[in-house]
Amino acid sequence: MTFRSVAIIGLGLLGGSVGLAVRECLPDVTTTGYDADRATRACAATRGLVGQVCDSAADAVREAELVIFCVPVGAMGSAAREVAGALPAGAVVSDVGSSKQTVARELAEALPGRTIIPAHPVAGTERSGPDAGFASLFQQRWCIITPPAGADPEQVRKLSTFWEALGAHVEMMDAAHHDLVLAVTSHLPHLIAYTIVGTASDLENVTQSEVIKYSAGGFRDFTRIAASDPTMWRDVFLSNKDAVLDMLQRFTEDLTALQRAIRVGDGEQLFEHFARTRAIRRSIIEQGQDDARPDFGRGDHSA
Amino acid sequence: MTFRSVAIIGLGLLGGSVGLAVRECLPDVTTTGYDADRATRACAATRGLVGQVCDSAADAVREAELVIFCVPVGAMGSAAREVAGALPAGAVVSDVGSSKQTVARELAEALPGRTIIPAHPVAGTERSGPDAGFASLFQQRWCIITPPAGADPEQVRKLSTFWEALGAHVEMMDAAHHDLVLAVTSHLPHLIAYTIVGTASDLENVTQSEVIKYSAGGFRDFTRIAASDPTMWRDVFLSNKDAVLDMLQRFTEDLTALQRAIRVGDGEQLFEHFARTRAIRRSIIEQGQDDARPDFGRGDHSA
Repeated sequence: MTFRSVAIIGLGLLGGSVGLAVRECLPDVTTTGYDADRATRACAATRGLVGQVCDSAADAVREAELVIFCVPVGAMGSAAREVAGALPAGAVVSDVGSSKQTVARELAEALPGRTIIPAHPVAGTERSGPDAGFASLFQQRWCIITPPAGADPEQVRKLSTFWEALGAHVEMMDAAHHDLVLAVTSHLPHLIAYTIVGTASDLENVTQSEVIKYSAGGFRDFTRIAASDPTMWRDVFLSNKDAVLDMLQRFTEDLTALQRAIRVGDGEQLFEHFARTRAIRRSIIEQGQDDARPDFGRGDHSA
Repeated sequence: MTFRSVAIIGLGLLGGSVGLAVRECLPDVTTTGYDADRATRACAATRGLVGQVCDSAADAVREAELVIFCVPVGAMGSAAREVAGALPAGAVVSDVGSSKQTVARELAEALPGRTIIPAHPVAGTERSGPDAGFASLFQQRWCIITPPAGADPEQVRKLSTFWEALGAHVEMMDAAHHDLVLAVTSHLPHLIAYTIVGTASDLENVTQSEVIKYSAGGFRDFTRIAASDPTMWRDVFLSNKDAVLDMLQRFTEDLTALQRAIRVGDGEQLFEHFARTRAIRRSIIEQGQDDARPDFGRGDHSA
């Protein structure tokens, strides 16, 4: 048994995908939704992202057993304040934010005394907005739930059942550890990708058209995640600052060591480093978190 | 009109793909091949990567009008010396190496007085070895030819026709400019990817199994190119040292600026940077150098 009515606040890639996944996987559950952007609400209604698109966040949550905030992490607090007066007594409040300590604190401040169980489905694409969502986004992906100390186990179980119904594997984790793990598996990669794409655009001796033309040499792999939503990512870096800066420091040390190996011509160190990174790729593919086809199946070959 | 007989020295991903592409696209052209590794030669014979697998590099080139070296760039010089005595008078010597100034110099030293026209098809996958090649690798990809000063235009044209026949678009470029362009579109991305995958493996407070599990948050995009052949990449960095170090310096400056923006909480600077990287992604897709399906078409959704 899970929740019978779900309110989704924020109808972009994540919120829209939750709505579509509920319609497909939990057809008996009713969904309401709201987005601060009028055009997004109109598109959400057309695509049927939720059963009912409401004109205010308060209206959307009035009958909800579960409220999921799907807004950028910097907007969680204000979004929560908007629904404070309308939230039913027993409703569970959750979210899909990419950092968990800050979000847990902001939701708790905005909704004192309420049942708050933050969560983070580790899934997404480089697209954003109400057009971007699809029902199978969470299939085979992990959803990390970070219940605060003293959370009601029955409500945690219901939230867990909800995400499993949408196709996700659920893992429980401490919010601080979540923020560290995601800093390395998601936040640092995005920061690096944004940086290198920026560096490549600013060169004076290589044209942008050359960068684009010869991107198949490796650069294009970075452009996908560097095309992600700028507002979302600005907020992630500001809200998970400490863990991101820690990972960045380690990355910079490692890069400096390789830079030195190149400068002094230490081929052995380079080879040793490059040889040990293949095993990780293999494990990621074995565990179904990526596609084994060479080149991600780009192009029409049968290798 | 192009060459009637092609010798391929080195039968890994690139050499094997050239052989298979010739068989498919230029069925009248005969191919011979050699690889220093006995097991690779056996596999090449089984897969039919070339018409005839020879027992020495010299035997492979004896009747060739075009010889293509498909070995790691650090091995070009010694591979070329092996064929020096057997190379027919009018044969054109080329290669597929990822750096061009060093390779051009080493081939010229090993084969004085011969016609050398270096080339670099900007195509590949993360796989390597004689099992990895496929005939369509070069379809819709760019092949950069870097003719030295005074190169015979007729031979350059024949090499160009050869690559076009295999499905590539051909571009002529100065070797020094090639090395700069590829430093940013290929070499720097590989170095960064190798670094971050190494950083993630060395953490003491996040387990390797967590890194793998939650890799769909962005990290997995880096693991693909960090699974590339370590020997090949060691050689690339050593042979294109100056351009790589130059790009790395710029990248580090840009990363430091973003790091500072995170530390001081400058959301505006982060947003401004993240917003301008989307356009490049769009152009890469429009020009057919990547796949527009969200997530590279991973998974079975229809977004």
